[in-house]
Amino acid sequence: MISQTTEYALRAVVWLAANPEKPLTAQQIAEATRVPAGYLAKVLQGLSRAGLLNSQRGLGGGFTLAKAPSAMTMWEVVQAVDPLKRIKDCPLGFEAHAGALCLLHQQVDDAIATIEKQFSSCKISKLIDPNHAAAPLCAYQPKGSKTGSSRRSRR
Amino acid sequence: MISQTTEYALRAVVWLAANPEKPLTAQQIAEATRVPAGYLAKVLQGLSRAGLLNSQRGLGGGFTLAKAPSAMTMWEVVQAVDPLKRIKDCPLGFEAHAGALCLLHQQVDDAIATIEKQFSSCKISKLIDPNHAAAPLCAYQPKGSKTGSSRRSRR
Repeated sequence: MISQTTEYALRAVVWLAANPEKPLTAQQIAEATRVPAGYLAKVLQGLSRAGLLNSQRGLGGGFTLAKAPSAMTMWEVVQAVDPLKRIKDCPLGFEAHAGALCLLHQQVDDAIATIEKQFSSCKISKLIDPNHAAAPLCAYQPKGSKTGSSRRSRR
Repeated sequence: MISQTTEYALRAVVWLAANPEKPLTAQQIAEATRVPAGYLAKVLQGLSRAGLLNSQRGLGGGFTLAKAPSAMTMWEVVQAVDPLKRIKDCPLGFEAHAGALCLLHQQVDDAIATIEKQFSSCKISKLIDPNHAAAPLCAYQPKGSKTGSSRRSRR
């Protein structure tokens, strides 16, 4: 229902939200979110262009969220990389439907509207609630760490 | 949100539901629904394999719905050609999430569940309500007809 690109963008944003201590490189995010590095680089570019990420070049550089997780919604992320488009005009181009969608396309548009409403009301901060049974992408263990859990417990 | 394949399948099913008088050829359906004929042929095969269409060879043959529009739902059509899959296990393959999805994937699964509910409760018969302002694919005029409306007014 959401595209692969959107899925990857959401993973990256959630990971950055959960790890705000310092900028993360594309390679670090790719590894943590299990996304092919080349693919993720393009997704991160899209998120940056849309103003959702800041990128910083050079040593110690990388990506950070451009605003607080409590000020960013799932819907913004979806729309930044692979937007779900509401149906405003007849997809078949019928002039007779310009004023009123047929019932099929009304149903499909209603479904998109429902998703828009759900994702718009879901802040990224909600997705990193440390009290939830499964922490965001929690099984990731940075290379060289022994447990990967020390980072989690600090949140 | 729904794929191109699903959109085309829904158009074909709605058109067949609205025109039950006789079998329609793939070419006739393609023309009416404004779908490339080669693409539609594959979609119709998928719908037939899923048991939603009957196909009849030979002169006067073509496709018909395999059951009444009041006994077929939008969800069945979606699932027949390009299924929306509920998320049961962590898409990243994390064992720690086997018992509980992280909040991101829970949100995405909730959205799919909502669409499943909406489309499951929508019968195809609802999509061809003749009293709706825009009849299904209503601007279609069969070749050789002058108005294209005589067919509509018989419904």
